Amino acid sequence: MPDFAAPLERLIQEFRRLPGIGQKSAQRLAFHVLRTSREDAARLAEALLDVKDNLGICAECNNISDAELCPYCRDSNRDRAQICVVEEPHNILPIETTRTFEGLYYVLHGAISPLKGVGPEQLRIKGLLDRIAKGEAKEIILATNPTVEGEATAAYLSRLLKPLGMKVTRIAMGVPVGSDLDFADEVTMSKSLENRREM
Amino acid sequence: MPDFAAPLERLIQEFRRLPGIGQKSAQRLAFHVLRTSREDAARLAEALLDVKDNLGICAECNNISDAELCPYCRDSNRDRAQICVVEEPHNILPIETTRTFEGLYYVLHGAISPLKGVGPEQLRIKGLLDRIAKGEAKEIILATNPTVEGEATAAYLSRLLKPLGMKVTRIAMGVPVGSDLDFADEVTMSKSLENRREM
Repeated sequence: MPDFAAPLERLIQEFRRLPGIGQKSAQRLAFHVLRTSREDAARLAEALLDVKDNLGICAECNNISDAELCPYCRDSNRDRAQICVVEEPHNILPIETTRTFEGLYYVLHGAISPLKGVGPEQLRIKGLLDRIAKGEAKEIILATNPTVEGEATAAYLSRLLKPLGMKVTRIAMGVPVGSDLDFADEVTMSKSLENRREM
Repeated sequence: MPDFAAPLERLIQEFRRLPGIGQKSAQRLAFHVLRTSREDAARLAEALLDVKDNLGICAECNNISDAELCPYCRDSNRDRAQICVVEEPHNILPIETTRTFEGLYYVLHGAISPLKGVGPEQLRIKGLLDRIAKGEAKEIILATNPTVEGEATAAYLSRLLKPLGMKVTRIAMGVPVGSDLDFADEVTMSKSLENRREM
């Protein structure tokens, strides 16, 4: 292996710990930092610590927040009748970028996974029940991932919430828009057939 | 756009400034930092500043170094008769990983580029002449990039160093090992023909 100066080697190793960053990318990033100004490096360093020191979790929906309530829960223009339930805070992103959902979110911070030893009691479900008890919510949209764990979580929540008189819906699974049927896997294709709609 | 808490948005923007990191990767990295411990984030932050504060340039070869001399120049086992000239410190990596070169390096910190207004006077060439003047070097291997700029730099150095009685060589250009001739571009293919060797 090449002999890097110790601080450079350390930075490469730290970059490698990030997801999706291999040895070559880590080297490229570290050499980039070498070339940039000290201010640029300091800004990234500060942003890293700021995130750890000044972010908490929304008291209403468990989303990441720098205040007691997250921007969605604070926003009085959003529709309190719909609550979209996701596994992790970053799952809000792809939904929000569609600009079609105007309701609130609720983050479980996990999904039921017997293989990983995660049961319903490890998820943050109580806050969802508390919010439902306030009586504003009419529909719970289950937007957990289209995986075995996400499906199990959706099934569990559906059984739990329907008896409370909630309308419980699940996001559609099917072939992606703009794709070619030839590339669809069997499970997606059969979901797509199963969930067909009349035209 | 989704509403991120301010510290999270700031971290995403800082990650985006790194090369090869787009909006989605930056979000993924930022959410990863959110999930890791504060110690992990602090170690990356420290490594970033450490690189800016504790690294300088080798007095002999201009490589990145945390001491007056870089690890290669310090290493008395390396062959002082061969000096491999590269454009940037990170260009040493691919050469060193071959484990076939035992000589020293010399880093120009750039390449001649009339389009970008970079002439020979902007490159660190004097140190190379000083090292040659010491009389230990017998061969200068020009390992500047196989680009117009790298070629121009190699041609310039060749004209400068040959009159000093140096053996000046250029790394070979040709089709990559393990590739298919069908995928070789015209310029590479013609270089490969031009530089053919007798078997």
